[in-house]
Amino acid sequence: MILGAGMMGTALAWPFVDRGHVVRLVGTHLDGEIVTSLRDRRLHPKLHLDVPDAVEPYFVDELPRALEGADAVALGVSSAGVRWAGQRLAPLLRPGTPLAMVSKGLQRGGAELPILPDGFANELPEAPRATIHPVGIAGPCIAGELARRVPTAIVFTARSSEAVRTWSALAAGPYYHVFPNDDVVGVEVCAALKNAYAMGIALATGMHAATGGTAGSIGFHNLEAALFAQSVLEMRAILRLLGGDPDTANGLAGVGDLDVTCNGGRTGRFGHLLGLGLGPDEAVRRMQGATLECLEILRTLRVALTSYVASGRLLEGALPLAEHLARVALDGAPVDPPLARFFGEALGARSP
Amino acid sequence: MILGAGMMGTALAWPFVDRGHVVRLVGTHLDGEIVTSLRDRRLHPKLHLDVPDAVEPYFVDELPRALEGADAVALGVSSAGVRWAGQRLAPLLRPGTPLAMVSKGLQRGGAELPILPDGFANELPEAPRATIHPVGIAGPCIAGELARRVPTAIVFTARSSEAVRTWSALAAGPYYHVFPNDDVVGVEVCAALKNAYAMGIALATGMHAATGGTAGSIGFHNLEAALFAQSVLEMRAILRLLGGDPDTANGLAGVGDLDVTCNGGRTGRFGHLLGLGLGPDEAVRRMQGATLECLEILRTLRVALTSYVASGRLLEGALPLAEHLARVALDGAPVDPPLARFFGEALGARSP
Repeated sequence: MILGAGMMGTALAWPFVDRGHVVRLVGTHLDGEIVTSLRDRRLHPKLHLDVPDAVEPYFVDELPRALEGADAVALGVSSAGVRWAGQRLAPLLRPGTPLAMVSKGLQRGGAELPILPDGFANELPEAPRATIHPVGIAGPCIAGELARRVPTAIVFTARSSEAVRTWSALAAGPYYHVFPNDDVVGVEVCAALKNAYAMGIALATGMHAATGGTAGSIGFHNLEAALFAQSVLEMRAILRLLGGDPDTANGLAGVGDLDVTCNGGRTGRFGHLLGLGLGPDEAVRRMQGATLECLEILRTLRVALTSYVASGRLLEGALPLAEHLARVALDGAPVDPPLARFFGEALGARSP
Repeated sequence: MILGAGMMGTALAWPFVDRGHVVRLVGTHLDGEIVTSLRDRRLHPKLHLDVPDAVEPYFVDELPRALEGADAVALGVSSAGVRWAGQRLAPLLRPGTPLAMVSKGLQRGGAELPILPDGFANELPEAPRATIHPVGIAGPCIAGELARRVPTAIVFTARSSEAVRTWSALAAGPYYHVFPNDDVVGVEVCAALKNAYAMGIALATGMHAATGGTAGSIGFHNLEAALFAQSVLEMRAILRLLGGDPDTANGLAGVGDLDVTCNGGRTGRFGHLLGLGLGPDEAVRRMQGATLECLEILRTLRVALTSYVASGRLLEGALPLAEHLARVALDGAPVDPPLARFFGEALGARSP
């Protein structure tokens, strides 16, 4: 069963269906129109694709019936919906139910920044909580590509390696390559940070366009690449700070997801608009209601980093790009990436 | 003085001129038409830009005159031209002349893969060799962007940190941000490898086009990102093998240069053609004589890695992407990136 019939929740059905499973796809209260379309015409109106026959659409109030006899439950809701999903599922989940989530990232918090799988588990009553080990699904995956069976390499992470093996056995297939990673904190932190940094990298295309340039082999690629490299090094520094493995930033969940987020969608478009010189309010307006995880992450991150600096665990100025992005996207400061302050020793990296 | 009036050699003049230096730009025997155009019209026919007044063009046979009284000498020739440049400059260089090179990468060799600054130094007679410490200029820098003063972050590396400081003082300026890195081997190896791996990452856009897809937010970005992440991890493994610092692959000289090479030019176009399904001969033909460093690097790398495997210093199959790229680009094997073999433990990385 998948809870959440948006683009990613629905796309996740493909690898399972292709492994021979029937997938009950349950819309949230925001997905009513999608479920209606799926029932009437099999068409997903956002993916612009028909869903396979083995996908059975359910409305949100049919959740208890959809859960009956389900072998495994995946959350396809946005990170903002994880708490809601936890509360809805808590009274219904059998102990030991395999549970996975494409929702990922950090919960809003003070300095502590709990990761979402832990946040979800905390919504459960004590009994199921002890037997349910949420698996985080992360790494570079554009929903519309997965649903078109584009070769995809993905990371499964959990505090239980058995839970990862269970999900891998259910989902892995010829175009859906699953790689386990036991660094839950590192994977989840990368999944969150990549939105903020992809927005930052996309500033460069906007700055190029603002000078009258058009997309092409001559652009602001030199700046873009400097932003990309600084992003990876700042992600490593933040992982170190939050107890993740910095090397997780080097692989699929880090540079891989960062790369796809720059290329694939709304986060990049939003960064482009900021790079053009639009203020955040105008840029948000032009995004016409698209979910912008980057803003939430930057808010959460700013609170946490300020507290880390205050307690002496982070050097002031060590993360000049993160600071600049927060000022641009949250405070409306002018775009002017501080290259001279990049690749500094305070980053904790030996070399630029 | 800059030797080599191609795109990169010429573009390098900008930061020096903007720091108030006069730059004598000496064409090689391949640059005759460029020098003629610069003399007659100030126009660089490949950059499509007029050079600044402080650039003085010279033909190759005027090299001795151009060198007279020059404070510092930069090589702007391709990696294939480094030996030639060493031989031409050897009898003319005063001991202690500050020398830098945008040419970068690995010399063709057996298992040893000498880096270019060492290769160049070896061409010099003993006396100047002891006093000349070539500085390698690396990191993400598209020539056409540098000559348009796009903000650029660059790496200077050398076996002498004083040599790096000297060049940094000559060149660094408001749009040319210089970052020293003392890992000469790591920087030079990254500079070479990024051509091969950028070709590999570009296979994905070609594969997408081969299925009838057009560039857009739905493409083969999931595959592209998996290739990108695997590239970074293989680069780290190769750095470890060759005595560089694997962490150099995380920054400007690694992911930064890889990113720009994917976005910026001929290497990406060549990979795209291979991804379309064209054989290497046809793909090379369509590139109309463009220099393809990636082919040379793949040849050099294959010889070296085979020898490392034979001597037990590298596990067979540890670098599945490098192997696949060599088979595709050198042997004409069909394109089929082996995702199932990516992110393996033999890579030496803890996590995917």
